[in-house]
Amino acid sequence: MIKVGIVGGTGYTGVELLRLLVQHPDVSLEVITSRAEAGVDVAQIFPSLRGRLELAFSEPSTAALAACDVVFFATPHGVAMQQATALLAAGVKVIDLGADFRLKDAHVFQTWYGMEHSAPALLKEAVYGLPEINRKQIINARLVGMPGCYPTAIQLGYAPLLAEEGQGRPALIDTSALIADAKSGVSGAGRKAEVSILLAETADNFKAYGVDGHRHHPEIVQGLQAISGEKNIGLTFVPHLVPMIRGIHATLYARILPSARHHDFQGLFEKFYADEPFVDVMPPGIHPETRFVRGSNMVRLAVRRPGGGDMLVVLVVEDNLVKGASGQAVQCMNLMCGLPEHAGLTHIAVLP
Amino acid sequence: MIKVGIVGGTGYTGVELLRLLVQHPDVSLEVITSRAEAGVDVAQIFPSLRGRLELAFSEPSTAALAACDVVFFATPHGVAMQQATALLAAGVKVIDLGADFRLKDAHVFQTWYGMEHSAPALLKEAVYGLPEINRKQIINARLVGMPGCYPTAIQLGYAPLLAEEGQGRPALIDTSALIADAKSGVSGAGRKAEVSILLAETADNFKAYGVDGHRHHPEIVQGLQAISGEKNIGLTFVPHLVPMIRGIHATLYARILPSARHHDFQGLFEKFYADEPFVDVMPPGIHPETRFVRGSNMVRLAVRRPGGGDMLVVLVVEDNLVKGASGQAVQCMNLMCGLPEHAGLTHIAVLP
Amino acid sequence: MIKVGIVGGTGYTGVELLRLLVQHPDVSLEVITSRAEAGVDVAQIFPSLRGRLELAFSEPSTAALAACDVVFFATPHGVAMQQATALLAAGVKVIDLGADFRLKDAHVFQTWYGMEHSAPALLKEAVYGLPEINRKQIINARLVGMPGCYPTAIQLGYAPLLAEEGQGRPALIDTSALIADAKSGVSGAGRKAEVSILLAETADNFKAYGVDGHRHHPEIVQGLQAISGEKNIGLTFVPHLVPMIRGIHATLYARILPSARHHDFQGLFEKFYADEPFVDVMPPGIHPETRFVRGSNMVRLAVRRPGGGDMLVVLVVEDNLVKGASGQAVQCMNLMCGLPEHAGLTHIAVLP
Amino acid sequence: MIKVGIVGGTGYTGVELLRLLVQHPDVSLEVITSRAEAGVDVAQIFPSLRGRLELAFSEPSTAALAACDVVFFATPHGVAMQQATALLAAGVKVIDLGADFRLKDAHVFQTWYGMEHSAPALLKEAVYGLPEINRKQIINARLVGMPGCYPTAIQLGYAPLLAEEGQGRPALIDTSALIADAKSGVSGAGRKAEVSILLAETADNFKAYGVDGHRHHPEIVQGLQAISGEKNIGLTFVPHLVPMIRGIHATLYARILPSARHHDFQGLFEKFYADEPFVDVMPPGIHPETRFVRGSNMVRLAVRRPGGGDMLVVLVVEDNLVKGASGQAVQCMNLMCGLPEHAGLTHIAVLP
Repeated sequence: MIKVGIVGGTGYTGVELLRLLVQHPDVSLEVITSRAEAGVDVAQIFPSLRGRLELAFSEPSTAALAACDVVFFATPHGVAMQQATALLAAGVKVIDLGADFRLKDAHVFQTWYGMEHSAPALLKEAVYGLPEINRKQIINARLVGMPGCYPTAIQLGYAPLLAEEGQGRPALIDTSALIADAKSGVSGAGRKAEVSILLAETADNFKAYGVDGHRHHPEIVQGLQAISGEKNIGLTFVPHLVPMIRGIHATLYARILPSARHHDFQGLFEKFYADEPFVDVMPPGIHPETRFVRGSNMVRLAVRRPGGGDMLVVLVVEDNLVKGASGQAVQCMNLMCGLPEHAGLTHIAVLP
Repeated sequence: MIKVGIVGGTGYTGVELLRLLVQHPDVSLEVITSRAEAGVDVAQIFPSLRGRLELAFSEPSTAALAACDVVFFATPHGVAMQQATALLAAGVKVIDLGADFRLKDAHVFQTWYGMEHSAPALLKEAVYGLPEINRKQIINARLVGMPGCYPTAIQLGYAPLLAEEGQGRPALIDTSALIADAKSGVSGAGRKAEVSILLAETADNFKAYGVDGHRHHPEIVQGLQAISGEKNIGLTFVPHLVPMIRGIHATLYARILPSARHHDFQGLFEKFYADEPFVDVMPPGIHPETRFVRGSNMVRLAVRRPGGGDMLVVLVVEDNLVKGASGQAVQCMNLMCGLPEHAGLTHIAVLP
Repeated sequence: MIKVGIVGGTGYTGVELLRLLVQHPDVSLEVITSRAEAGVDVAQIFPSLRGRLELAFSEPSTAALAACDVVFFATPHGVAMQQATALLAAGVKVIDLGADFRLKDAHVFQTWYGMEHSAPALLKEAVYGLPEINRKQIINARLVGMPGCYPTAIQLGYAPLLAEEGQGRPALIDTSALIADAKSGVSGAGRKAEVSILLAETADNFKAYGVDGHRHHPEIVQGLQAISGEKNIGLTFVPHLVPMIRGIHATLYARILPSARHHDFQGLFEKFYADEPFVDVMPPGIHPETRFVRGSNMVRLAVRRPGGGDMLVVLVVEDNLVKGASGQAVQCMNLMCGLPEHAGLTHIAVLP
Repeated sequence: MIKVGIVGGTGYTGVELLRLLVQHPDVSLEVITSRAEAGVDVAQIFPSLRGRLELAFSEPSTAALAACDVVFFATPHGVAMQQATALLAAGVKVIDLGADFRLKDAHVFQTWYGMEHSAPALLKEAVYGLPEINRKQIINARLVGMPGCYPTAIQLGYAPLLAEEGQGRPALIDTSALIADAKSGVSGAGRKAEVSILLAETADNFKAYGVDGHRHHPEIVQGLQAISGEKNIGLTFVPHLVPMIRGIHATLYARILPSARHHDFQGLFEKFYADEPFVDVMPPGIHPETRFVRGSNMVRLAVRRPGGGDMLVVLVVEDNLVKGASGQAVQCMNLMCGLPEHAGLTHIAVLP
C-alpha cells in the first residue's frame, strides 16, 4: 500500500482527492493537514465521506508527512514550494496541485502570481504532470507540478495538431492565431467565501472573465510551445463561467494551413490518442458534453471542420476536478509509484 | 459471474443500472433490450459508457433473457407483469424497477395505474425490495418489486418509529396524521419528451405537484402498515419538484404521543440502523443534504425535535436513481444471488 | 414626487428596491448610502441599472436622509433602530426591511438576534408592514417594520383560516399543530461572502436548515396570534434551501376541526382575498409555481384537501425579494404616502 | 391604441410578447390564436398572466387578424409566409418572429429550412428587423422579418467594425476568419417536448451543438455582408447550450489588420452606438453578464484586446427572448406605428 499524505484538504481538489484515494485499492491515507480545521473529523466537513474515512485534519507537520510515500499539496500557490525541498530530502514524492511547479521560469511565476518563487532550484527538476505528453518523465519524477484545469483541456485538444511539427513533420495549422474559448463550472473558482461565486450571482447567468489576462495563459503557451518543438505560439484565451458545478468545455479554433487542407484530422487524433486510457476521440456526429465525463477521469474530444472550410474546431470536455486536477494527480501518482495507470480511476461518469 | 439482462434500458434507471453493473465485480452484462433502439450501441445513446460497454440494444427476446441469471425490468408499468411468469418458469430471478409488483392488491394497482394487472397470481409471491425491512424475504425471493423512489425515503424515515409498535412495544407517534413533505430532482420524472420537465420550465423554479393524489401514496401506506403491524395509517403526502437532477429529500412530521415524550429518538434510530450498510443516522447538528449521497447508494437521515416540543421531524436524503431505484435493485440482486450486499455499491458520493 | 432615501443598498433587497423605485412613476431617488461603497456609482456595482440611475453611494448622513420623505433601511438588523428616532423626529417616514421593528417584544428580539434593542420605545408605534392584514395602520404609520420573507408567505397562507376565529366565528383548524414546510431560493440568504451559499455548494442540491430554531419562527407566531385573536399557536417551521435564485414556496398543513369538515375552504380564501391586488387565489387543479410570480409583487396560493380528508394543505408562492421584501416595502410606502397601492408594482412575472 | 393580434402564442416568444404587450401603454391586445389551445384562457397556460389578461386562444382566423393594426407571428417557420400576403392586402402590418422573412434568397431558405418558400415575392419587400442597422426601412415597412436570437447579438457585436468599410473608410479587421463562439440559454430551443432539452439532460452540463451547420449561419453572413458593403465574410459560428433559462452571450473574435493596430476601438463602439437606446457599450474593466439584461431589451457589450495584441474580442449579451426576439419585435412595432421607440420596453433587468 502506498502511504499518502495530503496538505490542505478542505478545498474542492482536496475533497475530490479524498473521494478518489479512499476508493483506491493501493492507497493508505495516512495524514491530512489543515491549519484551520485541525482536530476536526474530515467527515464532519465533508459528510459524503461519513463511514468511509476515519481521519481528522491535523496541524501541518513535516514529520508526519515525511513518513509518507507520496504527499499531495491541494493548497493555494506558495505553500508547496515552501515544503517541497524538505519532503524530497526525506525521500517523499511530491505532487503539487497548485501552481508552484507549473511554470518553468521563476520570473513568469512572479509576474502572474505576485510572489517570488522560494524554490527556483526545483523548477528544473519538476515535471509537468500531463501524462499524455510527459509520461516517461513522470514515471521517473520525484516532484510533479500538476497542470491547471484549463491547460489540461486546451493542451490535449491542440496536442495532436502541434505534435506533428514537434516531431519534424510539416506544420498543419497557423499557430500565430490560436483561439481557446473555454467554459468552466463554478467549482473551478474554489471553495472560497466570495460574493462573485454565490449561487445568486452565478446561477441562470453566463459571463466571460479574465479576458485581459489569466494565469493559465502563460502555462498553456509554455505547454503548446513544448509540444510543437518550441514554435512561436500566438494564443487568445478567453475563460467563461458556466452555471454548473463541475466541468470544462474548451472550444478550440485553429486555421488550417493551405498545405494541410487534405489532411485527415479525425484520423490524426484517433492515432495520437489510440493507446491513451483517459482520452476518448469521439466519432463524427457526436458533440462532447461535460456530463459525459462528470466524476470521471476521462477527457472526451471531437474534431470538426464546419462547412468543410479551413477553420478547425476542436471540442474538449473534462471534469475540472478529476482529469483537470485530482484525478490527473492520482494518475501521476500511479505512474510514479509503479501502479497500473488507471488504478482507482475507473469511475464511470455519473449521468444524468 | 452473475449473468444479467436488462429490459428497457433507455431511461434514467436503465442508464444508472448500466453504470452500476458495468463496474460491479461479479456481474456479466449479457443482454439489454429496447424495441425503439434495437441495433444501436448503448454507448451511442449514453456516451458516458464509451469504452466501458460493448453492447447494443436488442429486440426484446424471451430466449436471450431466459439465459440470464437475473433480469431487471427498467420499464414503465405494465411490461414486467407480461413477461415475469415465463422468465420465472425458466429459472430466472426477476427484479422489477417499475410498479407492477409493488402493491399487494391488484385492485389498488388498477385504480392507480389505470390497467388491469395481468399477473395477479404473482403478487403474493413478489417480495417488496426494501432490504432494511425485508432482507430475509429478498434473500429467498425469485421475484422482487422494487419500491418507488419516494416510498424508499419515506418508509426508511418512519420505520424506526413504527417498528416499535410493530414489534409489540408501546406506540411512539400519532399515526393518524403523518405528513411527508417530499422533494425530488427532475430525473424522477423520467427521460420522457414532456414540456413540463424541460429545463426552461423547471429551472429556477419550485412547485408542488400531485397534491390531490400520487401513485406512491398507496404504496407508502401499505409499507408503513406492514412495518407498524397493520396499524391504521393516516398519511398526507405532498411531492415537490426541485430544480436539480438527482436527489430526494423527505421531510417527515410525526406528533409524539404524550407517553413517549421522554423517549430517546436519536438513540432509537441509531440502534435500528446500527448494522445497515446503506443507512447513516447523522448526529445532532448536521442537516442531511442530497449532495451527501449524490451517485451513492446511501440514505442519510437526521431526527429533530424543534424547540423540544412534541413534533418530531425526520429529514431523509437519498439519490433517487441509486438507493431510490437502480442501486437498491442491485442491492437486492446481491442478496438474491448470495453476493456481499455491498458488492458494486461502494461508490462514494460525488461532492461537490 | 416622493423623495426617497435608502440606507444600505448593496444587498439583494437594496438592488431590488432600486429596480422598483427607478421605475416607480411617483418617486425621486435622492440618496443611497453605503459606508463600504461610498463614492462608487450604483450602476458600477449593479450594471443592470446602467443608463437608468445616475447616483453614487454616499457616506451615511442623517442630514441627507432627513431631507427625504421616506427612508428605507435595507440593512442588517441593528442599524435601523439606531437611526429611526432621529429620522422620525425630522418628519421622515421610516420603512425598515430588516428585523428591528418586526417583533413587538424587545426581549424576544434580544433572544433571537443577540443584541439589546436600542429603541424599545418605538416598538409599540411601529406597524408590522403586511398590508393585507394591517392596511389601515400602515396608512397612518410613521414607522413600518417589514415582515420577513417566510413570514409573509406563511401568514398570508394561514390568515383566512385563522381570521375566522379572530373575528369571532367558529374555529376551523387545530392551531396547536400547524406545520409550515417552507422552501426558499438562495437569494434569501443575502449577498454575503459565505461558503455555504456558493453555487458549488448549493446547486444541484437540497437541504433543510435551521430546523432547531429560526429567527422567523417567533415573528410568524406573533403574526398568527394577532390574526387569530391571540389564540395559542403551535407551529413547526422547517425552512429549506432550493437551488434557485428567487422564490419562496410554503407548503402549509393544518388539521381541519371535525366541526369544520363541510366548510368551503376554496370559497373562504377567495372571499378573504377578493379585493386584494397582490394576492391571487388560484382555482382548483393548478399548483402554484414560484416562477408564476418571479420578479412580481404577487402572492399566488392554492388550497387543497388531499383525498378529501381532514388535512388542509395550502400552497403559497411569492418572490422573496419582491412581495417578501422590497416590493412589499414599496407597497407600504404607497399606502403611507397616499399613492395608489399598486403604483410602480405592476410588473408581470418573468416567465420562463 | 394599436390593435394587435398574435398568431401562435403558446411558445416562449409568444408568452414574452404577451408579457411586454400587456404592459405596453399604447397597445390593445385583440386576438391570439392557437389551433391546439383554441378556447383555453391564455392565463391558464401561462398563470403569470392571471389577472392581467382576459383573453382566450382562438382558432386561427384571417378575419379577426385582419381587423388588427399589427399582427405578430410567433410561429415555427412556414406559417407566416402562408398568411402574410392576405394580411398585408388587408392593410395589416406584419411582424414575423419566425424565419420566413429573414433570408433574402428563397433558395437559401429552402436549403436550410427544408421547405419551398411560398411567398418569394414578399422577400424583397420584407425588411430585416434590426433597428440599429435598418431603422429607416423599418419605419416605413409593412412586413418585417425579425432576426434570430444569435444573429442579433452577433451582428450588433461586429457592426461597428464592419460599418467602417461599409461606409467607405479603411477596413479594420480581417473578415475572412471571423469566429463567433456563442452561448445560449435553453429557452432558445423553444417550448417543445424534446428529450434533449429536459432539465435532467441539460442542467449541470455544457455542450456545443450544430457545429457542422446552423440555420443562423447564412442569416448572420447575409447581415454582416450588408453592413460591410457586400464584403466577403468568412464566419465560423459555434453555438453552445448553457444550463440557464434565458440569455445569450456571444464571444466574437476578429483579427485586427496591421493598418488598424492603433485604432481606438472603444471609441469606435461608443460613437457607433451613442444614440441607441438599447445598446450599452460598457467601459473597460467590466465583463458583460447575461443577468445584466435578463428580462430587458438591452444589449450590453464590451470590446477587449487581450494582451494588447492583434486579436479583438467583443463580448455581447442579450436576453434571447427580449432583444433576441419579442422585445425587438415590439421595438419594430413602435417604429412602424410611430410610437416612441422605447414604449413598453423600459423594463430594468431582473438581478439577481
